[in-house]
Amino acid sequence: MAVTAIAINCTLKSVGGEESSTDRMIGLLAEAFGEHDVRLAETLRIVDYNVLPGVTSNEGEGDEWPELRERILTHDILVFGGPIWMGQISSVAKRVLERMDAFLSETDEAGRMPSYGKVAVAAIVGNEDGAHFSSAQLFQSLNDTGWTIPAVAACYWVGEAMGATDFKELDEIPAKVSETVAMVAGNAAHLAKLLKDNPYPGQG
Amino acid sequence: MAVTAIAINCTLKSVGGEESSTDRMIGLLAEAFGEHDVRLAETLRIVDYNVLPGVTSNEGEGDEWPELRERILTHDILVFGGPIWMGQISSVAKRVLERMDAFLSETDEAGRMPSYGKVAVAAIVGNEDGAHFSSAQLFQSLNDTGWTIPAVAACYWVGEAMGATDFKELDEIPAKVSETVAMVAGNAAHLAKLLKDNPYPGQG
Amino acid sequence: MAVTAIAINCTLKSVGGEESSTDRMIGLLAEAFGEHDVRLAETLRIVDYNVLPGVTSNEGEGDEWPELRERILTHDILVFGGPIWMGQISSVAKRVLERMDAFLSETDEAGRMPSYGKVAVAAIVGNEDGAHFSSAQLFQSLNDTGWTIPAVAACYWVGEAMGATDFKELDEIPAKVSETVAMVAGNAAHLAKLLKDNPYPGQG
Amino acid sequence: MAVTAIAINCTLKSVGGEESSTDRMIGLLAEAFGEHDVRLAETLRIVDYNVLPGVTSNEGEGDEWPELRERILTHDILVFGGPIWMGQISSVAKRVLERMDAFLSETDEAGRMPSYGKVAVAAIVGNEDGAHFSSAQLFQSLNDTGWTIPAVAACYWVGEAMGATDFKELDEIPAKVSETVAMVAGNAAHLAKLLKDNPYPGQG
Repeated sequence: MAVTAIAINCTLKSVGGEESSTDRMIGLLAEAFGEHDVRLAETLRIVDYNVLPGVTSNEGEGDEWPELRERILTHDILVFGGPIWMGQISSVAKRVLERMDAFLSETDEAGRMPSYGKVAVAAIVGNEDGAHFSSAQLFQSLNDTGWTIPAVAACYWVGEAMGATDFKELDEIPAKVSETVAMVAGNAAHLAKLLKDNPYPGQG
Repeated sequence: MAVTAIAINCTLKSVGGEESSTDRMIGLLAEAFGEHDVRLAETLRIVDYNVLPGVTSNEGEGDEWPELRERILTHDILVFGGPIWMGQISSVAKRVLERMDAFLSETDEAGRMPSYGKVAVAAIVGNEDGAHFSSAQLFQSLNDTGWTIPAVAACYWVGEAMGATDFKELDEIPAKVSETVAMVAGNAAHLAKLLKDNPYPGQG
Repeated sequence: MAVTAIAINCTLKSVGGEESSTDRMIGLLAEAFGEHDVRLAETLRIVDYNVLPGVTSNEGEGDEWPELRERILTHDILVFGGPIWMGQISSVAKRVLERMDAFLSETDEAGRMPSYGKVAVAAIVGNEDGAHFSSAQLFQSLNDTGWTIPAVAACYWVGEAMGATDFKELDEIPAKVSETVAMVAGNAAHLAKLLKDNPYPGQG
Repeated sequence: MAVTAIAINCTLKSVGGEESSTDRMIGLLAEAFGEHDVRLAETLRIVDYNVLPGVTSNEGEGDEWPELRERILTHDILVFGGPIWMGQISSVAKRVLERMDAFLSETDEAGRMPSYGKVAVAAIVGNEDGAHFSSAQLFQSLNDTGWTIPAVAACYWVGEAMGATDFKELDEIPAKVSETVAMVAGNAAHLAKLLKDNPYPGQG
């Protein structure tokens, strides 16, 4: 069975057509996935949708999360992308994590959440510091809501302390970033295939 | 000079008139402040306003943060109230922190942010676990944006691991919570008065 | 190939023979692993060994980490157990994470760390609050150092806010804890077997 | 009354006489304090002492924390210095925080811990990323144990993502770091003086 991926970009900026730094990191991952026959189907820029605050899968009128939720769960790999603000992952990312809280009560007869057997990795960018705090927030929340985290699952870039450079402004991708991207994509592809062919059995 | 306080409630729920668990904790603090001649002027339920994503003080058309920002900065003490979701502070709280990022570039001639000399405390509630993670997120962000944190600045309540009780459902306020509330209010009142009378000088 | 597990207990207390609350949680996992034909070979109580501060695999004279490191890497599943202090994972746990930092430079020809293909889960206990902060710290660090985190990888128990009850004093294991333990063990066993039979390929 | 400061350096390295990167940051703060008539009396390199694991103020035979505790509490300002490892504050720092847990039960007749009225700031260095996660851990723990956190209380430096440069190797101190150091020292000096002259009253 072929494995596919989807990305979410939790930038705060709703700028039609303009690439964000998070997009650039997601783009690198998309290329790297290609070398493992994994297609990154699309990137959802969350801020362009009306994702209502709440912890259920449908918060009623105007809520666009139900559609996003369905598109995310169509795929085997989730690239959770977002920028760092105030040293932590963005509020848009946190909102997505809150909406996934509903998975905890959407288990099947074997106690498995809709995310079971799916793999999540992080794509984090910032001007300076906060990548580890962000991946800690993400991995804890994603794991609580049923996602599996492959070895070395965080691609990130930040500049020197209190710097102001954006990742998208870099003339060249640092070698360390390229190597990490390659490893993250390879590990995620491998693990997603394994789990797709051999789902978690859950509790009898 | 009299000292006044304001609270923000970062619940995810926009329920007209209904008290949230966060409201209840804020209410306890309001009472305790009263014993120190500090009036808690109002509680802003953030989710009822259109606070746009971003990191400036005005994100343009429809943004209601400028008004909230002004009301918050009128007072000497900020009670930063919010619920825990996924073991962390709510996305609504994170959005407020992001909007305060703008303070970093709104310094006066002595390098002081609009929050300098103001005191912040936390009021955190959840069904289970996450209060320390939340206060860590809050204190780091609030301190970065110029707020002063008095000794013992976190009031919190959570139930046993994986529990489902709401703070507002408790028949009685646990003694430990009441004692902490009294201490938090007393320390904040004392420190806010000191700093109001003796502002940080900033850099010459 | 049979899969085996090992546990580390990062309690601060060196009490010969006495069960700690962390031991009790590890014991529940050991039983649950038994139902999946996974043997938990032993529990290393880290505080009983002389683990020197540092970030290499051998910090010289008197350092007992090299021996612990070898025993840990003999197995397919690591149960990372520890108590919460000050709302965060213990200093003993942090020391172990620091010593695993060395894995980053101990890669094979395909760029794989010694932990690649191994699975880690968390067993966290405390009197009150801090389990999510602790699992965030653990999952970020363990993932950085090459461990794979199965779906729902954290068993934890904490009491009500500012409480003083120990997990080992509970007359009965709460149902939610038992259910989580069963799920954690089942998921870890399944994933460890998959990865043992189908190792990450690494980078060519 | 004159105000004095003390620093702790929570490096993992016990290297007689050699300056660590943390020492360099502490040195900058010491100079800056001088401009506010605050003397930084000494720096305690914690790893050179036998600080036993535990959460009391005296863990028995061989424990050198009691002496360190006394020296720390002699002063009005604590510079809590430490390196980042695995994106988080060092295990040596965490051990110190755990030992301060005892303050919670060492209150006077007005409910005040030994740290009440004292001010704490952070001095954090690392090769790359983790300063905000570290200051979040520090500010939450220090605040829980009675310390007051002045506005802008974190001096830090980290290099670009996945870099390997040490702060002590920099030819020149970045301007942003110098400015932050000056602000941190000025704010801490001001607040410590205020609180020394006007102690928290505590609960009657």
